[in-house]
Amino acid sequence: MIEVPRHIIDLQPYKPGRLIEDIQKEYGFERVIKLASNENPLGVSPLAIQAMINSIHQLNRYPDIASMTLRTKLSEFFHIETSCIITGHGSEAIIQTLMRTFLNDDDEAITVTGTFVGFYVITKAIGIKLHLLPLDENYGFDLGAILDAITPKTKVIYLVNPNSPTGTIFTKKQFEEFINLVPENIIIIVDEAYFEFVTDNPDFPNSMDYRRDNIVTLRTFSKAYGLAGIRIGYGFANPELVGYMLKVRLPFEPGIPSQAAGIAALTDKQFLDYYLKVNKTGKEFLYNLYDELGIRYIKSEANFVMTVHDSEEEVNRINEQLLRRGVIIRPLRPFGLPHCLRVTIGLPDENEIYAFALKQIL
Amino acid sequence: MIEVPRHIIDLQPYKPGRLIEDIQKEYGFERVIKLASNENPLGVSPLAIQAMINSIHQLNRYPDIASMTLRTKLSEFFHIETSCIITGHGSEAIIQTLMRTFLNDDDEAITVTGTFVGFYVITKAIGIKLHLLPLDENYGFDLGAILDAITPKTKVIYLVNPNSPTGTIFTKKQFEEFINLVPENIIIIVDEAYFEFVTDNPDFPNSMDYRRDNIVTLRTFSKAYGLAGIRIGYGFANPELVGYMLKVRLPFEPGIPSQAAGIAALTDKQFLDYYLKVNKTGKEFLYNLYDELGIRYIKSEANFVMTVHDSEEEVNRINEQLLRRGVIIRPLRPFGLPHCLRVTIGLPDENEIYAFALKQIL
Repeated sequence: MIEVPRHIIDLQPYKPGRLIEDIQKEYGFERVIKLASNENPLGVSPLAIQAMINSIHQLNRYPDIASMTLRTKLSEFFHIETSCIITGHGSEAIIQTLMRTFLNDDDEAITVTGTFVGFYVITKAIGIKLHLLPLDENYGFDLGAILDAITPKTKVIYLVNPNSPTGTIFTKKQFEEFINLVPENIIIIVDEAYFEFVTDNPDFPNSMDYRRDNIVTLRTFSKAYGLAGIRIGYGFANPELVGYMLKVRLPFEPGIPSQAAGIAALTDKQFLDYYLKVNKTGKEFLYNLYDELGIRYIKSEANFVMTVHDSEEEVNRINEQLLRRGVIIRPLRPFGLPHCLRVTIGLPDENEIYAFALKQIL
Repeated sequence: MIEVPRHIIDLQPYKPGRLIEDIQKEYGFERVIKLASNENPLGVSPLAIQAMINSIHQLNRYPDIASMTLRTKLSEFFHIETSCIITGHGSEAIIQTLMRTFLNDDDEAITVTGTFVGFYVITKAIGIKLHLLPLDENYGFDLGAILDAITPKTKVIYLVNPNSPTGTIFTKKQFEEFINLVPENIIIIVDEAYFEFVTDNPDFPNSMDYRRDNIVTLRTFSKAYGLAGIRIGYGFANPELVGYMLKVRLPFEPGIPSQAAGIAALTDKQFLDYYLKVNKTGKEFLYNLYDELGIRYIKSEANFVMTVHDSEEEVNRINEQLLRRGVIIRPLRPFGLPHCLRVTIGLPDENEIYAFALKQIL
């Protein structure tokens, strides 16, 4: 018998959105609308597709160990030195690498209930004590409460901006006050997976603009860039931290076609701009729908909207009834918000089908 | 200042074979022959290429979380339950997941000097004490010595069969004696990355045939299947161990096109058989070359051959002179065998170019 550490036995694994194929099988539908995982509903950038196909002849070779191909391109694109850039098999892999690189067993982490579940799983899988604070009354990060919760054992603070599943942001002013008060020996992770969707909010802080040695910015190709299926995250940090993380991470992250697709996707401004437009129109459509139906929702800076309901029973009823109509959205019990639902903004016809179903249910 | 744990500061990262592009740039060559990383010199299976291209339209979606697509196919192919199969971003990722899942800080691992360097790096990155035993006088795993080195703290034993960089195997008889004497609370990893190359040795043990709860078999698509660039490893273990590892690993390993390519590559028997034939012919060619030149070599059951030299100086001289002639092979100092070189068996013309260069040098 292999003895298994207690924290692994107790670990609750990450549960993603339901798959289209599963719901098709379960309910016998031909068309299923997936609005559950904040994926890009337009599909994949044509430039990224072409770049992947062009890379296929090299697949028998190992990628370059330090992802220099992709990191060099990111360096040019974001005007930041290559030595400040880390890449990974999804930004989740970078979080995992960071935690494994810098944390000792008795170090602790802080974040909130009502943010990216992957962070909870990674932290617990490593056996790190995680302090979960409540969101503020507007479903935003309560940076003041996080400051108050810091102890000498705190090594990492995890922020998500815009936050998922709430769609809220914290402002420049809030962030500046916060980073000025966090001790320099604590790593502040700012997960900006939804960064590209904030197009017209002057109060939104781009954490890259604050070049402190303890801030790590995370970005991804999985959301706005439409490449969730090939797993590429990237991040910006001071070169010393990046150097240590490069030693600890798996040597070949991401693979050859992923690097090729990421590079091409970055340059496909037309595709991104079009998606941002589709997303904005869809968001207005959902806001109007909820206003019309009298459903409480939180204004979102991302590609999804969270609705707030009276009870978990109501949430489960809506979710179940939507599934029976071939629409997958996300009940937020695993995120610690059991009375809330999250809907990814889809293509216009997907939003219409969701709206039609929702009206039938209510 | 972020405090960094001592074992991370001391960590020596993995150093892969040199890249073709680097040597092209450094020496100004148009053609560079890479015989350094045991890659499939034929390229990629046409079926795998087609499957990848067919998967591209789904890349905006997350993969299924448990890699069921690929695991179901592996289950059919190897006649083993899906619940016994684990996949990862390269088999290295599976090793990492396994170590993180089952080892406490004071657990220890055993392997040999002269095997897969990635295991050393992973173990040290996790902060686990690693005991390195010498190879036997024939450059093979000394299973008896490993048995003698077991202590109550031993939690993992890492074996590679056929071994890289030596090309040696341990036999059925040796393996059976060994597993009968290893306590059941110790995990025996048998890394069979080069499994497919052992085509006609009845003494070779397929570790999958020994269904013990503490044996974990690892395989890869990176070598015989020619898919190093997309990173897919897989493994077989008892369902309980697999269940724990699935909780700890990154949720989406491997990505969508990688799963598609792996599935197709498995079924492309023609491509694999042809490569095995090319490899066998190439191996005979190298044996004859070394016999002719009076170079000591170790008979290999894999897609590479290790040569043994008088000194590290001689090894470095040969390596340097080969690079100057556009041929990349692998000096084995990082593997703990500084007086040895490893050459991947290439295409016939690549082997000829290497032979021509080697004759010039000696």
